[in-house]
Order: sequence, then C-alpha cells, then structure tokens
Amino acid sequence: MFRVDLNCDLGESFGVYKLGRDEEIMAYITSANVACGFHAGDPQVMRRTVIAALNRGVAIGAHPGLPDLAGFGRRWLEVTPEEVYSIVVYQIGALAAFLRAEGGRMQHVKPHGALYNRAAVDRNLAGAIAEAVYRVDPELILFAPWGSELQKAGEAVGLRVAAEVFADRAYCSDGTLVSRKEAGAVIADPEEAARRAVMMVKEGKIIAVTGEPVPVRADTICLHGDSPAALAAARRIRESLREAGIEIKAVGKK
Amino acid sequence: MFRVDLNCDLGESFGVYKLGRDEEIMAYITSANVACGFHAGDPQVMRRTVIAALNRGVAIGAHPGLPDLAGFGRRWLEVTPEEVYSIVVYQIGALAAFLRAEGGRMQHVKPHGALYNRAAVDRNLAGAIAEAVYRVDPELILFAPWGSELQKAGEAVGLRVAAEVFADRAYCSDGTLVSRKEAGAVIADPEEAARRAVMMVKEGKIIAVTGEPVPVRADTICLHGDSPAALAAARRIRESLREAGIEIKAVGKK
Amino acid sequence: MFRVDLNCDLGESFGVYKLGRDEEIMAYITSANVACGFHAGDPQVMRRTVIAALNRGVAIGAHPGLPDLAGFGRRWLEVTPEEVYSIVVYQIGALAAFLRAEGGRMQHVKPHGALYNRAAVDRNLAGAIAEAVYRVDPELILFAPWGSELQKAGEAVGLRVAAEVFADRAYCSDGTLVSRKEAGAVIADPEEAARRAVMMVKEGKIIAVTGEPVPVRADTICLHGDSPAALAAARRIRESLREAGIEIKAVGKK
Amino acid sequence: MFRVDLNCDLGESFGVYKLGRDEEIMAYITSANVACGFHAGDPQVMRRTVIAALNRGVAIGAHPGLPDLAGFGRRWLEVTPEEVYSIVVYQIGALAAFLRAEGGRMQHVKPHGALYNRAAVDRNLAGAIAEAVYRVDPELILFAPWGSELQKAGEAVGLRVAAEVFADRAYCSDGTLVSRKEAGAVIADPEEAARRAVMMVKEGKIIAVTGEPVPVRADTICLHGDSPAALAAARRIRESLREAGIEIKAVGKK
Repeated sequence: MFRVDLNCDLGESFGVYKLGRDEEIMAYITSANVACGFHAGDPQVMRRTVIAALNRGVAIGAHPGLPDLAGFGRRWLEVTPEEVYSIVVYQIGALAAFLRAEGGRMQHVKPHGALYNRAAVDRNLAGAIAEAVYRVDPELILFAPWGSELQKAGEAVGLRVAAEVFADRAYCSDGTLVSRKEAGAVIADPEEAARRAVMMVKEGKIIAVTGEPVPVRADTICLHGDSPAALAAARRIRESLREAGIEIKAVGKK
Repeated sequence: MFRVDLNCDLGESFGVYKLGRDEEIMAYITSANVACGFHAGDPQVMRRTVIAALNRGVAIGAHPGLPDLAGFGRRWLEVTPEEVYSIVVYQIGALAAFLRAEGGRMQHVKPHGALYNRAAVDRNLAGAIAEAVYRVDPELILFAPWGSELQKAGEAVGLRVAAEVFADRAYCSDGTLVSRKEAGAVIADPEEAARRAVMMVKEGKIIAVTGEPVPVRADTICLHGDSPAALAAARRIRESLREAGIEIKAVGKK
Repeated sequence: MFRVDLNCDLGESFGVYKLGRDEEIMAYITSANVACGFHAGDPQVMRRTVIAALNRGVAIGAHPGLPDLAGFGRRWLEVTPEEVYSIVVYQIGALAAFLRAEGGRMQHVKPHGALYNRAAVDRNLAGAIAEAVYRVDPELILFAPWGSELQKAGEAVGLRVAAEVFADRAYCSDGTLVSRKEAGAVIADPEEAARRAVMMVKEGKIIAVTGEPVPVRADTICLHGDSPAALAAARRIRESLREAGIEIKAVGKK
Repeated sequence: MFRVDLNCDLGESFGVYKLGRDEEIMAYITSANVACGFHAGDPQVMRRTVIAALNRGVAIGAHPGLPDLAGFGRRWLEVTPEEVYSIVVYQIGALAAFLRAEGGRMQHVKPHGALYNRAAVDRNLAGAIAEAVYRVDPELILFAPWGSELQKAGEAVGLRVAAEVFADRAYCSDGTLVSRKEAGAVIADPEEAARRAVMMVKEGKIIAVTGEPVPVRADTICLHGDSPAALAAARRIRESLREAGIEIKAVGKK
C-alpha cells in the first residue's frame, strides 16, 4: 500500500498584508508548514493558522526562515551555523507555544527558502538545523530533499526525516531541482504535475529534463496555495494520487 | 522563616550591542527575566543567557515585551488584548525552546516595560497576558505588583502569582510606585534600599513618600545589573537580607 | 473657478507583499502620498512608485508613519515630539532622494494613520511634524484636516497647508470625522460620495450625521485604491467633480 | 604639501544601545561616516550626530549598510544590484534631510561593512552604489579602496573618489587587506600604525605582510573610536601626521 503526505507553506501573511489562500489549500493538504515571524507570518497570523489547521485535522510543522521579511527569506544571509541553530530553536519554540496553547502537538520542521536551499548542500548549516530540531524535540520529523546534506544531518542526529519532492518542478539527472532561472524549471500543466506525483510515489522515480529516469523518494509532496491556478493544480494532484490508490496521510500519522 | 526571591532583567543585549552586566549580577540573584527578542535580546543572546543561568543555578523566566526594539519596549503601543495574547505566547515559546534544548524548565513570566505598567492597571490587557501564560504552561509563575490588575488576572485564571517589589523605588500611599518623572522616585542609597528590602520582606510594609506605612507583599525583589552602582546595591541588598535571616531562594524552588 | 486636488496613499506594498492597485488609481488622482518604509513601503517600492507617478504626471508627497510595519502605522505608539520630528525628517529625506535621482521634486507631506490622527488633536506632536517638514524644505505643502492642530502648526511655522477632506466618510457637527467604530462612518455609495465631494468643493460645507450643515474647506480629497469598489468610487467622484465644472489639479500646480 | 583626511564611522548607537565614543573621536577626525538606520543608527541618533559634527566642523558623509541590524551589516545578504541601488538612495536621502534641516551639506558616501567589502570586488554591485550616489547628488565624494571595483565604478559614473586606507590593518602584496581571520591582520601598536599612516601619505606606499613595498593612495585614513585604545591610537596617528608636516583636512574642503 502506497501513501504520501501533501504539504504546503501557510501562515505567510503579515499584519495587513495577506498572502496565500490558506483556507482553500487546507482542504487538499495533510501537513502545513507555518511561517514563524522571521521571513513571514506574525504572532496573530500564527495563532489563527494553528487554530485553523487543528480544526481541519491538518498536521502542523514549523517553517523557520532567515530574519529577512523584506526578502521573504529567499535571499541568502551569511549566517554562521551557531546563528542558524539559535534562529531555528527560537522559531520552533514560538510556534510550538501556539500549539500547546491549543492543545496540539507539532509534527515536523521544514526550513524555508534560502535556508532550505543552503541546508541541502552545506553540511555545517544542515547540522546546525538538525541539532536545533532534535534538541527542542527529538520526536519532530525533519522535511528534506532526499540525498541532501539536510537529510543526512537529520538522520545522523537521530531525527526521522521525510523526503520531500516537488510535483511541479523539473529535476536534473542528479536528483536536484532545475534552477528557477532556467526555462522549463516549473511544470505549469496540472495534469503533467499530477502524473509526476503519482510516478514519484508509486515508481520511486522521476524523468529528468535530460530524459533519463532518476530515482526519488517521496514521503511528502510540496503543493502551493498562492493562486487559483496553484489551487487547481493541488486539487488535481490530490485526485490523481487517490485514483492511483495512494493513501494521502500526514507523515506523522500512524 | 522568611524567604524572598531576587530577580533581574537579563539578556538585553542585541547583536553587537551590549547591555547589562549579566555575568556579574547572576552572582546575586535567584531568578532571571530573559528578554525574548521583541524589545531586546536576540536568539543568540537568549541561548547564551539560558546556558549561563542554568550553569549558575539561577531560575529562568520569560520577559516578553512590546515589538519595539527602538524604544526598548518602554513606549506604549496601542495593541489589542488579542495581539498581546499572541505576542506573549510567541515570546514565552521562543525562550522555552532554548530551555528545552538545554534540558531546563521555565519558572516564571514577567512582562516588560510598558506592557508590565499597563497590565498593572488595564484589566483586559492583564487578562490577555494571564491567559497567554496559563495556556502555554499552567505551572508558570506570573510576576506582578501586589494588588495590580495583573495579579488579579493571574489568580483568576489559575496561575500562581509572585508579588514583586522594588527596593530602590519610592512608593505612594496606595502601594503604587512614585513615577520616575517625580523627584525622589529612585532610592539611590544602597543602604536605604537594603533597609527597605528587609522591611518589606520581614514586616510586610514600606514607608510611603508621604510618611505613612503601606502594607506590601514581597515574594520577589527586582534588582538591576546595568551599572557598577546597581551591582553594588544588589550586593548590599542581598547581604542585608541574609544578615536579617531571610532565606534567598527562587520562587519556584521548594 | 473651483479647483480641487485628488490624493491617494500609494506605494504601500512591502517585499513580496502587494497592497493597493497603484497603477489603476493613478489614472484618477493628482497627488500621491508615498509610504516611506516605516509603516509600509520599502526602498524598491518607493523607487518604482516615484517613477510611475512621475511618468503619469501625478504630484508626489511623502507619507511618513510610525515605525510599526506589523500594525501598518495605525496603532498609536507613545513617541515624544522629538522622536516624531526625527522620524518625519528621516522619511521625507528618504523619499526625496528617489525624486532627486529621477529629476523630480516633492510637492507635499501627509502624515499617515495614527500619526495623522494624533497630530490633528495634539499640539506638541503637530508642532514637531510641522517643524520637521519646514526645516527639510519650506516649500513643501502640508496636508491636514481644516481646523486641526496640524493645520495650525503648519501655518504657524510658515508652511502652506492644504485642507484635506474625505468624500467617503461621515462628519460630526464639529467638523471631525465620525469614528470608524460607529455605524455609518463610511459612505459606501459612490454616488453619495461623489455628491458630497462636489458639495464640499463648491459650497464649502458638508451635512453632518446629525443633519446640520458644517463648513469645511476642501483643497484636496482623499481617495482610495485598495479594491475594485474603491476604484469605481474614485472614478465616479472624479467624473462628478468634472461635470460640476471643478478643475482637478495638484495643489502645488499653478 | 601633503594632506590627508581622517574619517571614522559614527552614529552607530540604536535606541537605548550605545556604541562608540562619538564625542571623543570627533576631536581627531575631519570626516564622519554616519550610520543611516539600516545596519545601525536611528533617526534620533542621526539627528544628534549631524548636529554634533556640524558643531565640531567635522564633514559629514552617509554610511549606508545592508538592512541587518542584528548582524550590524557585516553579514553579506544576497541583494541584487537594483536592491542595492534603492537602499543606498534611501539611506543617503534620509541622512541628507537631517543636514538640510540643520543647514549643512553632505560631503561623501562610504558604504558599510559587507556592502563595502563586496563592492570592492563586485562590479555590478559597485556600479549600483556609484549610480545611486551620483543620481542623488553628483557632487558627493565616494570613499573606496584604491584600485577596487568601487573606485572604478565611481569614476566611471563621474564621481570624485577618495582613496581610503587603514593605518591599523596589514596589507597583502596586491594592495588588499589581510583578512581579519588571519594572524597579524590588525596593527595593535599605535606607534606602528602612526608610522604606517605617515608612510602611506608621504611615500604613497605600504610594506606588505610579505615584506615588499606596495603602492597605495591615501586620501583618507579610517580611524576608530570604539574603545579607549582606539581613541589613543587615533590621537597618536593624528599627532604623527602633524609632526610629519601633513595637513589634516576633510577631502571636500578646498
């Protein structure tokens, strides 16, 4: 029996600024990565997002980012591993308190943006993140690309790691994502994205831009909820997975 | 047998900016109120402060403030009770994660600056703070001036409240502090401050600026560590309490 | 011959966060109040907004606010007049540099949100703002409600003051706005708003919620561009003013 | 006749946080690089620093940095040239307004920290800074290491560039600074620093760590005012320059 988790970044609004269609995308996902106030989100948004996710039965994870609201955490900032450790501990804790206040429990941690991208290739950074997660709560599941430094660091420290894939992104033959700066990096067609999602889960592979099959592990698929098109794609991906007999369930659920 | 706790605001440095003589004042206190990154402090400072306090055996509390680093949380910002609830939950959680990472446990919460002053007289604000503390962890002890709205709100929600007094501040006949804007608001003489500390703990009273005795409850005395004079006063107060046979112990210790 | 200026708050986006339909509302207005990075806006947004307004022939003003992005400058922060002076000088200067870089010149200054509302009734605050504007550039025009402390302070210091009115807000019999917290504070019907705009400009009066006519001075009318309905109302108000033979021109234009 | 300018970073305090001994170092320098609120400084500090420098006859320049108060602008943030252009325009403008308010005029611009270091070697970044400075005011003098991309970009755009050297830092044979991470990077002995300052100005050379003489151009020497030792070194350097018959004068003075 195949199963997969569907995750999405949520709680990215800030003050009067609204971002994402959180309510709508929650109908399709099983895990929510909640922004923690550094690259997006604020305490009010975090509280509301936690309550909404709990009400929907969507599992909740922290989505810690670099302290750069102006750049949405997408610009790399030359932080030391020690600084990364501290900002990750801080953000996990901040979100965890909203969960405790509502009687919930955090399922996972997924670093955001430039932190996620760097942690995939930088061993020291990955180690700092893994240690931060483990020391705050060793039961937390770390989301990471399979084969990345982040995955390795997570397992080395004793965390359970969930392999994350992207149904709407092209892959290189080495299993990494094609850069967004290159043509064809994003799969715009929902049907194609849905087919790829099913292939990754059931066959454990994806067809690289260069044409050859690449082995992948897909514990959780990242969806998007920031536009009507993204929502439509998310729904289509979910339907296709269901039709293919794949169970859709949060990674932390038995 | 009389006992009292000695607390001080710590961890107020930020990035390259240093504030306070944290290492030195820790020798005299039993409880540290650690800034949580909104009015002062940053994740690195919080981590180091938590580790230093744990090493010293100083009990740790969260010191949440308004989101105003430029004003050090001393300027009132017109936040709603709902916003206050969220920023207090957030900050307690952020600090608690550093404690969990080090195997420690948070003892108390003391709101900072304008938040503390307003919560003393504003029932809705006090209620929001008390609820935030209770929902994150009902075992936390809330620091509040005796007779204040904050004390009442804390007890109403089921929290243990520790009555905080100031040895170096003049009191009005109604038990509130003389405003810093008025002459004589601050007791500069360490001997006088030490005498007042002993009187408050052993006799449960203080002499108001207007001359009459005022009943006070003193579970914890607020000391300062931001200057050599403050450190000297802290040491003198501690010595006098000891000489008077008063046990100096964190409020959360049995 | 009657004339009036039509102004709108612009440049309120921040990083990835988009706010307002700046391009569309610029077709209807003659003066743009550009956020300066404290309550909204960022350097990139400021640059683009300045260029867009210059291309459209829309006069540009600074829209300084309190340093509170999370609250969009709508929450009062207990700043001193000296602090207000400094944050207003800073923000005017920041925006002025983008104008100089593009060969333009600033026309006016309109304080934002809580700063505007407080300055209307607080003499010291109003004085600080007026002095800041005057000292940076005595040719700048200050936008203020007629009869307010801000208008008085502006004229006392030697600034030209443009009286601002709101076509879509109900007025009290003393000429102040009905609080948004009360029913009927906002005029939702575009036709009604347009009628009120014409009456304020041509007859120099408005009908208060209590029924009696109140004298007003209307040099500039504040429009909104944050929703399709706001845009439609803006267009209707502009058409009605034109149909009534009122010239629509930036206050700083001869 | 030889002449040289002595510059120092000033106005780096923020809110309650004090940094630097601005009043004391102003006795020794001819040009002040004033922080503009992004990596350090705030509007109140900027106002006071501008007034103090004007009173002392110290020429004033903007010291724009990356938007990273927590890292003091020393951590590289992956900004685009377009973003750099905008943050430099913004910060120059903000400081210029305090000068206008006091009847003064800005002399120069010196990028701070990671922005300065990157601009020395990154042509696109250097070009963005040079263009920002030029477009705000083509009379501004740009401070840059001689031979750097920043110097070239400044001259290419038509700015006057002042070559900056460091009396207390070791140089490599290619004229760049020895990294602070390496031993011997900093010249701790004030006498040695003073000798090097005189040699750089009068002989147009410096002895590299590897022993050979390296040609340098020294229009302005960077001093420090953040400690008693730094102040003592600054005084010694100034005295030695005087004793060597070198005129000490702001670069912008005739």
